[in-house]
Parts: sequence; structure tokens; C-alpha cells
Amino acid sequence: MPTDFTNTRRAFHLPEGVTYLDGNSLGPMPRDAARRVADMMTDEWSQMLITGWNKAGWYVQPRKVGDRIARLIGAGPGQVVMGDTLSIKVFQAVSAARALRPDRRVILSDSGNFPSDLYVAEGLAKAVDAELRVVAPEQVADAISDDLAVLMITEVDYRTGRRHDMKALTEKAHRHGALTVWDLAHSAGAVDVDLLGCGADFAVGCTYKYLNGGPGAPAFIWTNPDLAEQAQPILQGWMGHAAPFAFDMEYRPAAGIERMRVGTPPVIAMAALDAALDVWDDVDMADLRARSIDLTQAFIAGVEANCPEVTLNSPRDPSQRGSQVSFRHPDGYAVMQALIARGVIGDFRAPDVLRFGFAPLYNDLDDVAHAVDILADILANRTWNRPDFHQKAAVT
Amino acid sequence: MPTDFTNTRRAFHLPEGVTYLDGNSLGPMPRDAARRVADMMTDEWSQMLITGWNKAGWYVQPRKVGDRIARLIGAGPGQVVMGDTLSIKVFQAVSAARALRPDRRVILSDSGNFPSDLYVAEGLAKAVDAELRVVAPEQVADAISDDLAVLMITEVDYRTGRRHDMKALTEKAHRHGALTVWDLAHSAGAVDVDLLGCGADFAVGCTYKYLNGGPGAPAFIWTNPDLAEQAQPILQGWMGHAAPFAFDMEYRPAAGIERMRVGTPPVIAMAALDAALDVWDDVDMADLRARSIDLTQAFIAGVEANCPEVTLNSPRDPSQRGSQVSFRHPDGYAVMQALIARGVIGDFRAPDVLRFGFAPLYNDLDDVAHAVDILADILANRTWNRPDFHQKAAVT
Repeated sequence: MPTDFTNTRRAFHLPEGVTYLDGNSLGPMPRDAARRVADMMTDEWSQMLITGWNKAGWYVQPRKVGDRIARLIGAGPGQVVMGDTLSIKVFQAVSAARALRPDRRVILSDSGNFPSDLYVAEGLAKAVDAELRVVAPEQVADAISDDLAVLMITEVDYRTGRRHDMKALTEKAHRHGALTVWDLAHSAGAVDVDLLGCGADFAVGCTYKYLNGGPGAPAFIWTNPDLAEQAQPILQGWMGHAAPFAFDMEYRPAAGIERMRVGTPPVIAMAALDAALDVWDDVDMADLRARSIDLTQAFIAGVEANCPEVTLNSPRDPSQRGSQVSFRHPDGYAVMQALIARGVIGDFRAPDVLRFGFAPLYNDLDDVAHAVDILADILANRTWNRPDFHQKAAVT
Repeated sequence: MPTDFTNTRRAFHLPEGVTYLDGNSLGPMPRDAARRVADMMTDEWSQMLITGWNKAGWYVQPRKVGDRIARLIGAGPGQVVMGDTLSIKVFQAVSAARALRPDRRVILSDSGNFPSDLYVAEGLAKAVDAELRVVAPEQVADAISDDLAVLMITEVDYRTGRRHDMKALTEKAHRHGALTVWDLAHSAGAVDVDLLGCGADFAVGCTYKYLNGGPGAPAFIWTNPDLAEQAQPILQGWMGHAAPFAFDMEYRPAAGIERMRVGTPPVIAMAALDAALDVWDDVDMADLRARSIDLTQAFIAGVEANCPEVTLNSPRDPSQRGSQVSFRHPDGYAVMQALIARGVIGDFRAPDVLRFGFAPLYNDLDDVAHAVDILADILANRTWNRPDFHQKAAVT
């Protein structure tokens, strides 16, 4: 049965008068999330107190929720665990990958990566005598060489939506003896990811974008099962111990992906995320990808036909693009403020990028048409230049 | 005006028939917490979507909530920031302290520390060519020597409640050129901590114990303002950047304690914690400490007068003790299960420790008297040995 996207759209609270194209920053609230969190608090925390760790299953939840995400990214059950933030998970994955290639110093990434992935890798590199090497996105394949320990790549570029070829880059990295870390921040829930099929080594991601887990929702980490028992965490956390409640003086890593847990899991936040993942249960990822392509293609066609003032900043070929589209305009910031003032929520990225995310779960072709109309109207009438608009924007 | 502890007790939901002496593991739910979280979700996330980061103040909340905790631990405003878990904060503090003493290799701790602090320090030590040295708690002062980079101490022992002398150990560490990291997991909200008065260097703690922030609530970190601008984080996170939304390619640490932020803050969990901190607004920490001593002294006196079968496992001198008391009994595990079955919730720590936390905010002398009565009854009648009890315990 094909995925019913009318039904998934109904699962979200979308404010009246808002066309939300910023789910690639923060997904909207699933209708069920507030009740689920309230139930967790009043039925579990309040009543069970400390016994909730076992009775309510709080302790095992990071893996159970991880299993729900595994299906969305081409991983198997028992291979994904939740917790912390994406920055921490990047640190864990890159440090573990580097430790598996101790004779090599180079961590390779690209300038299309999200800047904080580069910050994290640089902080690690300084501490453990490694070197972060950053090349342009289109030079990544050529820069893979025999001195490489880790290839650290964000699959979908946060500004342009450009999508790297996970399979080709992973295979080339492996031929040169390196391991790969894939950041799925703009992939999970947005495109059809196939970690096992690509033979990737580590993957990490956040859940507050296309997965709609809420602001600051827990991150995830995956280790290829072929490596999971060899990967040695630098962050030797309590919950990553083989027997956390034995209170041993010595650290022994837990089996498999569980060793990538660190501290006490964020139980309240996990309830919201678990509710958000319910929406995915009947979603076929091939249907999702097809709908994503329909939406982004329609938006590109609509904008190019009606808004000659902007220039496409995303790959035209959908196979090289995630679920977002960006355009450039010299007054990009002001144009985006004008859009937001009229209820079309995208976002701006310096210096001149108008960015629009399309979340197949709740965005539809009406959203696309409406966003094109408003953008065309703003650009044709140069609304963003009017002094009275600036006054209005200042108070929003 | 003296603190009204009848009023603070009313602020919590305490289940009928339960005497809760495990707030040193997980504090009970403040009555206001569920509503506050629901309001955050329905009024902020759901309505404001991405604009909540500014409009609802999500972005600045880690420091605003940190300011509320600062008062409880003898720190100043702008010196504490929230996020992540205690394990991560231990890693940040110890790594930053070590980096400030690059010519020294030794991290000193004690066997009374919580094991996962030792795991974290050992993981760091392996990665950055340092050495973790662990001595008995009573040997810490003598083990401070000129090769020490960092003294990493949990102020209050999680099993015995033994409290280290923060001022004396900090001063001795400084005389030998070392820096101190204090873990306040069993101190914050339990005893009168005076970080600035003791001249401590770094401090970290969790908020789900005596601060009642909920399971997995965010941790905190404090850096002495004299060091805050020199401390260099290994975990170079997005939110710890001087200008996170400039999306610079290079990391520049934010001013002061803000550089100890890592990833996206857990906004939903922070709403629960913020509600929990309301209860502290009218609490004087000297009153809190006096009440804690009253409760623990009364419990020791009551148990020793009525339960000759157990042996005190905590310091008798309240000045050397936190807000918990433990006793040893050869059948400690079964005795604790019997207590829990009768509504007195403490916890057990191997091999034979019965542990009871006294949270002055909601525990009172009636709780103490009731716990003593039930414990005495169980021990006198050897209830935990009865086969029918074991059957009952197995299903709870």
C-alpha cells in the first residue's frame, strides 16, 4: 500500500496561516507529542520514581528508539543508540574511527560540511595529534589517499542540499584503507539512506529536523556491526559500560553499539521523540523519496518560471540533491524576512542564500504553489525594500 | 525569614504510601513540572516553531537556568551553563584543566569517586597521554604532589555520604600547582557548597537528584571566572562558538563559560528543570544544611537505637557527611527489597550497603521516624528471609 501522506500531514500541528518550509531546521510538533510527554511525567516519573528505570523501560529506551530510526536509515535492529547531541556523536564516531587507524593522522572533510562538524574534528585532532584536512565538496573523491584515517562527510549540504554519493565515497575510502563517518543531519527522514548497503562504517544524526523530535531532541549513532565490537570510545560513560550497575572501578565497554551510550538518557525528551517516530511507522522510504523529489522539482520549476530575480543554488539533478532547495538573491536576508512576515517560513544563510526545506511527511504541492506565489509577489513588487516593511520586520 | 520547608514539601508530588529516601538517585516530580513542559510544547514549539530559539529564549536558557543553579553552589551569575550529561561535563572539565597544565600528566582521584568519573578520566587519559592515579579517599591529601595536573574529586561519596574538605584540598592542590575539578552530583541541592569561597577551578554536577529536574535532566558546568577565558574545550561544539550563527569555518571559543556549551540544548527537558528550580527560590542554603543535618542525625540515632543488626557506613560527624546515610547489613539487598515492598524507598549498593538520601526540600522528621520503624520491624522479624516475601518481591 502506498504511503498515505494526507494522513501523515494530519499528524502534525501546523499553525494556521503558516507554510512551514523550515523542517530542515526544526520539525513541527506532532499532535501526539505533548500528551505523550505529559503521560510519561505523570504516570511514570511521578508515580514510579526511581523504579521507572526498569518498570517504564527508561533504561532500554535509547536502543528501542534507536531501532525505530534504524529502519529509516538502512541499518539493522540493535545497531543504533540514542543520546546526547549531534556534536557529541560526531566526536564519538570520529574518535573511534581514528583509534581504529592509529597509524594514520588525517581526517578528511569538506567545506560543505556543517561548520560544527569541522569544529569538533579540529578539537579532537588537536588533542590526539591528528590533522583535519578540508577540501571543496567536489574534490573529496580525489583527496582520498593512503594517509587517510577517517573520511568525515555530511551527506547533504546544509546550504545547497547537494548530496554526496555515499556508496562511491565509502568504497573509495575503503580501497585506501580509511574508515567513513557519515553525518545524516539532513538525510535522516529526508532521503532514502542505505548505510548497510553502502558499507558505511559510522553514522550519526540529529532528530529535531525531519524526524520532528522537538528542540534539542536526542541524537543517534550507528556503528557498522562489523566494527561495533572493535570500536573503543574515548567518552567512557556510565551507560556505555558492560555492567553499569556493578559499579566496577574499571571500564569495560558494553557489547556492540551500547558502548556508544554515555550518561543518563534524556527520558522526557525521548518520550516526545518516540511519539514523533509513530508517524513514520507506515511510511515507505521509497515513497518518501519520490514525494521529496516531486516537491523540490515543483518548487524549482515554479520559482524559475516566476522569479527571474533569484538563482538556483542547489543541484538541478534530483539524484544529487537532498530534500531542500536554495536560491541566491543579493538581498537574501531581507527577502527571507519578507517571506516570513507573510507566513512562508524558510531560512537565510549568509551571504545570500534563501533556504527551503521540504518535509514529505507534512509538506504538499499546495505549500509549494503558495510559497512560489508569495516569493514571486515579494520579488516583483520589491516589497522587502519598502521602509514600512523594515519597520514591521523589526518587531516580529 | 527562615525557609518554609512545609511549603517546599507541598511543591512535590509524592505518591500516597511512599516514604521516598532515594532523591539522591532521582528526585520526585515537582507539581508544576508537567504543566510547564506541556506549556512549552504547545505554546512555544508548536506555535513558534523555529522562531522559538529567539522568541521563547530557548537559545539563552542554558545560561539563565545556570544562573539559578549558581546561587545554590556558591558561584556567581554568568558562571554556570547547562547541557549534556554529567559524564560529558566531567570530560570537558578534566580535559580543559589538563590542557592548562600541559607539562603535567597526572590526574588524581579516589576510589570513593563515582566509578563513571573514573571511566571518563581514564578514557581521556588514554587519548591524551595522561595518567589516572586513584588512591583511597583518606589518602587524597597526602597524594597531592608536584606532578599533579588535575585533582578530580566527587565531594560527597555516593555510597557512604563521606564529604571531602573542598577548601583544604583545593588549597593544597593549588600549592602544588594543580587545578581542581569538583563533581557536585551529591552536593548540589544537598549541602552548602561554596565554590568561589573555596577557590575551586572547575565544577560539574547533575540536576536529577536533589535538584529534581527529572530523569536525564541536563547537567551543569562551572569554571572559575579567573580561568574561564583560558580554558580551551576539546569538545568544540556549535553552541560553544563565539558566533554560532555566523557559520564560520574556524572555531573560536565563546566568551567565558559559554564555550562549555556543546550542541543544541535540550529545550523540553530544560522546561522541567526550570520548574523544579522555582522551588529553590525561597530556600536559604544555611537552613537547608541545618535541616539536612537534623534529618540525618535523627535517622542515625533512630536506627542505632532500634536496629542493632546494621552498622553505620557513613561518617558520624555531620561536618564530614553529605545529606545521605548508609548502613551495612550482610543481607542488604534483600533487606532493601523488603523496605521497598513496604513503601520505604532507599537503594542498595553492592556488596551490602543500604543507602538513604534525605532531601530537606520534601523529607521531614515523620519520614525519618517511619523509615526507622519499618526497618526495625523488618530486621526484628527477619521478614526478608520469608519465602513468601521472595515470591512477592519477584513480581514488584
